[in-house]
Amino acid sequence: MTNLVYLDNNATTKVDEKVLEAMLPYFKEEYANPSSMYNFAKTSSNAIVEARGIIKDFVNAKDEKEILFTSCGSESANTAIRGVLNYNKNKKHIITTKVEHPCVLNLYKTLEKQGYKVDYIGVNSNGELNLEELEAAINEDTALVSVMWANNETGVIYPIKKISEIIKSKNKETKFFVDAVQVAGKIPIDVQENGIDLLGISGHKFHAPKGIGALYVNSKTMITPLIIGGHQERGKRAGTENTPYIVGLAKAAQLAQDGLQYEITEVKRLRDKLESNILKRIYNARINTGIADRVPNTTNIGFEYIEGELILLHLSDLGICASSGSACTSGSLEPSHVLRAMNVPFTAIHGSIRWSLSRFTTEKEIDYVIEKLPGIIEKVTSISPYQKELQALKNLKNNTLS
Amino acid sequence: MTNLVYLDNNATTKVDEKVLEAMLPYFKEEYANPSSMYNFAKTSSNAIVEARGIIKDFVNAKDEKEILFTSCGSESANTAIRGVLNYNKNKKHIITTKVEHPCVLNLYKTLEKQGYKVDYIGVNSNGELNLEELEAAINEDTALVSVMWANNETGVIYPIKKISEIIKSKNKETKFFVDAVQVAGKIPIDVQENGIDLLGISGHKFHAPKGIGALYVNSKTMITPLIIGGHQERGKRAGTENTPYIVGLAKAAQLAQDGLQYEITEVKRLRDKLESNILKRIYNARINTGIADRVPNTTNIGFEYIEGELILLHLSDLGICASSGSACTSGSLEPSHVLRAMNVPFTAIHGSIRWSLSRFTTEKEIDYVIEKLPGIIEKVTSISPYQKELQALKNLKNNTLS
Repeated sequence: MTNLVYLDNNATTKVDEKVLEAMLPYFKEEYANPSSMYNFAKTSSNAIVEARGIIKDFVNAKDEKEILFTSCGSESANTAIRGVLNYNKNKKHIITTKVEHPCVLNLYKTLEKQGYKVDYIGVNSNGELNLEELEAAINEDTALVSVMWANNETGVIYPIKKISEIIKSKNKETKFFVDAVQVAGKIPIDVQENGIDLLGISGHKFHAPKGIGALYVNSKTMITPLIIGGHQERGKRAGTENTPYIVGLAKAAQLAQDGLQYEITEVKRLRDKLESNILKRIYNARINTGIADRVPNTTNIGFEYIEGELILLHLSDLGICASSGSACTSGSLEPSHVLRAMNVPFTAIHGSIRWSLSRFTTEKEIDYVIEKLPGIIEKVTSISPYQKELQALKNLKNNTLS
Repeated sequence: MTNLVYLDNNATTKVDEKVLEAMLPYFKEEYANPSSMYNFAKTSSNAIVEARGIIKDFVNAKDEKEILFTSCGSESANTAIRGVLNYNKNKKHIITTKVEHPCVLNLYKTLEKQGYKVDYIGVNSNGELNLEELEAAINEDTALVSVMWANNETGVIYPIKKISEIIKSKNKETKFFVDAVQVAGKIPIDVQENGIDLLGISGHKFHAPKGIGALYVNSKTMITPLIIGGHQERGKRAGTENTPYIVGLAKAAQLAQDGLQYEITEVKRLRDKLESNILKRIYNARINTGIADRVPNTTNIGFEYIEGELILLHLSDLGICASSGSACTSGSLEPSHVLRAMNVPFTAIHGSIRWSLSRFTTEKEIDYVIEKLPGIIEKVTSISPYQKELQALKNLKNNTLS
C-alpha cells in the first residue's frame, strides 16, 4: 500500500521491528515447551521468567507472581472480572462506567442475565466520570468496581487513584479492576501508587503483536482461572506458554517505557498540531472532549451535520486510516455509546472521528492530513441536507473570529 | 545448542520455516486490525477468511462458520466443554476417559465440584478404551462425551467413529467433543465422516507457533462463549484476531495435510526403527502399548526397574529431548496417569519414556539415539536397587532369544 498514513493506533499498532527481532529466536531455534525438563527448554523458560519481571516493572507490581500472561485484553478482562466474581459468589453487585470498551460492556450485559446487578456510572460532556455517582453506588454487596484507565475513543484519562480511594473508603473488600489497555505505553502505570487490585493490558496497543496480553492480580486478590487445565501461570491460566509473544510483549513494554517522554512531548505535539489545524481550517469541526487529562496520542473530533462513515471512506481512498469508534464495533451504524454518554449533540455525533497517533507517526503524515482533510470535509459537507444549519454555523464562526 | 536431537514433538514442535515466512507480512506491513473498515484492513481480514477456509478443509467441516480460532488447545477444550454445558444447564452428566490430557482432566475435576457427575472410562493394558463401559454409562442426562482422538503419551488412537455411533444410538442429544490435538498433522481428520460435534486442535503440535488453536463446532451445536466481549469469531470468541498466527496455523495445516503420506511412511519407519532397535539392544525395555492403532510418530517404552527421570537427565546431557509424560505435568514425580490407567506394571511405570518424532526427524538422529541409549540405560541400571530382578529378566530374555 502506497502512502499509508496510519492514525488508528488505538485500534491496533504496527509491531516494532525490535519486538519482531526479539521474538524470532523463539520461532526458530528456541522452540522448546517452556515446561519441559531438559536443558533445551532452559532458554525458553528463562525468557518467560525474564519477561514476567519486565512486565512486573512496567506496571510496578510488587511481585512477579502477580503477573499472568493472557492471549489478549479481552481475556485479561474476562479473567479478572469473572475470576473475582466466581471466587466470591455471594456478592452480586458490580459498578462500571457507561463508557467502558464494548467488550467489557458486553460481558456485563451477560452477567446481568446471570443475576448480577450492574451500575453504569455516567460522564459529563467533557467525558469525565461522575465520581459522586460512583461513591453513592458502592455498598456492602459490591464485589467489583471496573473502570478503564483511559477511554479508547476520546483518550480521556480517569482519576484512578482517586477512584481507588473512594472505593476503599466505602468498602475495603470491593475489588478494583482497571482496564489499562489504552494507557499502556502512553502514560506511566503504577498499580501500587494507584491502589489497583487487578489491571489488564494488551500488547497490540503498544507495538507488540495481536494475541498477547497480561493481567496483574495483586497478591491479596483471589481469582478462579478462566482457562482451566495445566499448571501454567501458577494454575491461573492453562495452555502452553506462547514464548515468542511473551518475549515480544516484554520487549514492547521496555520500548514503551523508554518512549514515554517522547510520547508526552513529540506525539502530543503532533496530535495538538493536527487538532488545532483541523479546528482552524474547518468551520464545522469541534473537539468532542475537554482538552485536559487525555492520553497524548488521541483526539476525537466531531464534524457537524455530516456522516463520519463518508469522511472515513474518502480518507481511506487517500490511504489515511482513522475510525469512528472501536474496531470491535466497526460496521455498526449506531453512533458511539461513548459520545452518547457524553451527550455530544446529535449534530456532531454522527460525524465524529477518532485520530490516534503513535511514536511512528511523522510530521509529514500529519501535514498530509492537514492538507487533505479540508477538501474532504468540504466535499462531504456540500451534499449534507443541513445546508441552512451549516450556513448559520459558518456565520457564527466568522463572527467569533472577526 | 549443538547436537540437538528433538524427540518430544508431542510436547511441542519447531515452527516450520514456511509457516514463519507466511506470518511475517502480518507482523510487518499488514498490521491492520482485521475488524477495521478502511482499505488497509482488507488484506488482513481477507487473510483470516482464507485461513478459516483452509482449517475448514483440514478437518473437513461443512461450513467455514463452524471454525473458531482460539489461543490454544486448552482454550479450545474449555470453550467446547464449558460452552456446551453452559448452553444446556439442566443436564449434569459427562463422560470422558481416564487417559485424557491432564488439562482436560483438571477441568472435569473442577466441574465435579460444581455439581456435575463425571464418568471416567478405563482402558486395557494396550491402552484401548473400554467401549462397553462407555456405552453403559450414557444416559438421558448425558450432556457431553469427551474423548481424545489419540493419547499424547502412548500415541494410541481411539475409534472415534465407533464411539460417535455408540453415543448417538443411546442419546441423540448428547454432544461429542474430540480433543484432536495429538492427531492433527499425523492422521487425516474428518469431522463429518466421524460424527463429531466439537473438535479442538492446537497449532504448536504441528509446526505452527504456540498460542494458536482452533475449535470446530458443528452448526447444530450451540455453545456460550468462553471469552465474552467483541463480535469477533461471530460472537463466539472475543478479542482482536491474532492475524499472523491465524495465517500461520492455516499454513501449518496445509503443510501437515501435504505431509500426511510422509508421516505414515517415513516418520513411521523411523519410529519403528527406533523402537525395534531399543527392544533388540536393551533387555529391560518393553513397549507400553499395543502396537496397532497408534499415531505414526510416537512410541512409549518402559525400562524396567529404573527411574525415567534419570534416563532423561542423561539424554538431555547429550542433547536428546524426550519426556516421561506431558510437559504440563513435568517436574511431578507421580507416575503417569495414563500408564497407571493401563496397569503398566510398577516395575516399568517409573522408567517409561515417550519418544515422539516429526517430519523434521532425521535418520542420523535416530541412529544417534540407538547408539547412545544402551550405554545410558546400562549406567542407570547398574545403580538400580533391583539387581536380582534385573538378572532374572536378563536370563529370561536370553532364554527366549536362544
